[in-house]
Amino acid sequence: MKKILAFLGPVGTYSYEAASRCLLTLENTQEWTLQALPTIPHILTAVAEGSVDAGLVPGENSIEGTVNITLDMLAHELSLYIQGETVLNINHCLFSHSQDLGEIHTVLSHPQALAQCRRFLQQKLPQARCLPANSTAEAVQNLASMGPGTAAIASRDTHRFYNVPILVPDIGDYPCNQTRFLLVGRTPCPHSDTKKTSLVLALEKDRPGGLYEVLGEFARENINLTKIESRPAKKELGNYIFFIDCEAGHDHPGLQEVLRNLEKKTALLKNLGSYCSIV
Amino acid sequence: MKKILAFLGPVGTYSYEAASRCLLTLENTQEWTLQALPTIPHILTAVAEGSVDAGLVPGENSIEGTVNITLDMLAHELSLYIQGETVLNINHCLFSHSQDLGEIHTVLSHPQALAQCRRFLQQKLPQARCLPANSTAEAVQNLASMGPGTAAIASRDTHRFYNVPILVPDIGDYPCNQTRFLLVGRTPCPHSDTKKTSLVLALEKDRPGGLYEVLGEFARENINLTKIESRPAKKELGNYIFFIDCEAGHDHPGLQEVLRNLEKKTALLKNLGSYCSIV
Repeated sequence: MKKILAFLGPVGTYSYEAASRCLLTLENTQEWTLQALPTIPHILTAVAEGSVDAGLVPGENSIEGTVNITLDMLAHELSLYIQGETVLNINHCLFSHSQDLGEIHTVLSHPQALAQCRRFLQQKLPQARCLPANSTAEAVQNLASMGPGTAAIASRDTHRFYNVPILVPDIGDYPCNQTRFLLVGRTPCPHSDTKKTSLVLALEKDRPGGLYEVLGEFARENINLTKIESRPAKKELGNYIFFIDCEAGHDHPGLQEVLRNLEKKTALLKNLGSYCSIV
Repeated sequence: MKKILAFLGPVGTYSYEAASRCLLTLENTQEWTLQALPTIPHILTAVAEGSVDAGLVPGENSIEGTVNITLDMLAHELSLYIQGETVLNINHCLFSHSQDLGEIHTVLSHPQALAQCRRFLQQKLPQARCLPANSTAEAVQNLASMGPGTAAIASRDTHRFYNVPILVPDIGDYPCNQTRFLLVGRTPCPHSDTKKTSLVLALEKDRPGGLYEVLGEFARENINLTKIESRPAKKELGNYIFFIDCEAGHDHPGLQEVLRNLEKKTALLKNLGSYCSIV
C-alpha cells in the first residue's frame, strides 16, 4: 500500500502544486501518493492519527500573513514535526473559454484571489461581476456548467487538470505573492543536512526584556533568525508565545547550546523540527 | 458636511460592528458618518487621498493571523497614523428563516467563516452543502432570494440589518476568535494619554544579533512589547522588516529615548503612531 501525503484539495489548487513538488523529493517517491483533504485541521489531525503519513499545509502568505491555525495546532494541540518547507510563487491567471475580455460578464474565484486581482478586474473587466468559490480550482471546474462569458482566476498549473484555456496570465496586483508551505510528519526529518529549525516558546512571565534575553542566546552563538512572531497565548490574556525560525540545522553545535539555555529561561519550549527547503 | 469613517462593507459585517464602536468614541461623534468600501487598499488609499477622513481596517485575527496588506501599506506605501485600536469578538451565528436544522440543505458564508464553523457544520448539518459568499453580511442578505431550507453564517449583529432570525448562536469552532481593527487617519492621535505605539523598522544589515540590539533599547527603558513580527522586506530577499508594538504612549520619556537610539541603528524606522484602545 502506498504512503499518503495529504494536501488542501481539490486537485489543481496552489496546495496541490506545492504537494506535487514535495512528492518528488520524498525518499522512495514511487511509494507515495497524494490525497486531498478539505481543511488544515483535517490534514494535521490525519497525520497525527496516522490515517495519512505526511501533510502539506500553508504556513504563511506574503500578502495575507501567517496562517495561525497551522502554527497553533503544531504548537499546542499535536506532536508533529516540520520535515521540510517549500515556497510557491502565486501566479493568478484568468481562465476562460471566451477569447475576448469584452465578452466576460462573470468572474469566479476564491475571495482572496479575487481581492488579489482587484486592480486587473477594475481596469480590464469593469463590466464583470465577481462570484466567490470555495477554492481557485473549484472556480475553474465550475466554468463547465456556467456557459459562455464566464471566467475564473486560478493558478497557472490548474489548466493541466481542467480543460479550460488561460486567457490572460499573471493578473495578480502584487508582484511578490508567495506562499510558504510546511511538510509535516510524525517523526523528525530523516536528513542529516537540515538548515533551519522552528521553535515555539513562552517566557516565564510577561516582563520587559524577557524576549531580549532569549534572543541573546541566538546572538551569542551567531545564529541568524529568519522569522520571529509573537502571539497572545490563548489561555491567559497578557501572556505571549513566540514562533522563531533560525538558520541552524539539527547538527549545528550552537543550536544545541541555545536549546539547553532556553530550557532554563522559558515556561514552554517546543522544537517543531529541523528541516531543509524543497525547491 | 459630515466627516467620513470608511470600513470594509457592506453594512452588518464584523468590520461594520467595529466601525460603529469607533464612531462613538470619536470627538464630536455627531459630525461623523460611516461609508462602506470594498477592500482594505480602497480604504487606506481613500484616507491618504482625503476622500474620507479616517478608516477602520483589520490588522490581525487570532485564527487567520496578521493581515499583511494592512501593515505593508502602512509601512511602505502611505503616510498615515494609527489613531486607535479595537478588538472585536468574532461570534459566528447561524441565520435562517427555518426553525429546524433538519430542513437546512444549504449554508452560505464567507469561506473563512465556513471554515471556522466546520465542526458545527459536520456535526449538526451533515446534509447541508456550503456555498461561498463575498462577505458574511452578503450571505445573510442573499437568503432573501434563496427560498426555504437555506441558512447563512454571520456576526450576531447582522440581524439588526437584515430581517432574518438567528437559529443557532455561537457556532464557531474556536472559543478565542478575535479580530483587532486599527483606526487610521492622516494625523497623529489627538489624545495625550496614548498607551501603545506601533513601529516598523529594518536593520542595517541582516546579521545575527541585529534584532537583539534593537530589543535591548526597549529592555533598557523597561518598555514591554505586545507584538513583534518579522517579515521579508519585499524589495530584496534576505532582508527583513520588523513590526513592533510596545506599551508606551507618545509622552513616555523612555520611548523618545528608544526612538532616538533606534534612528542610529536602523536602516528604516517609521513610527506608525501612538494610540489607545477603544472599548
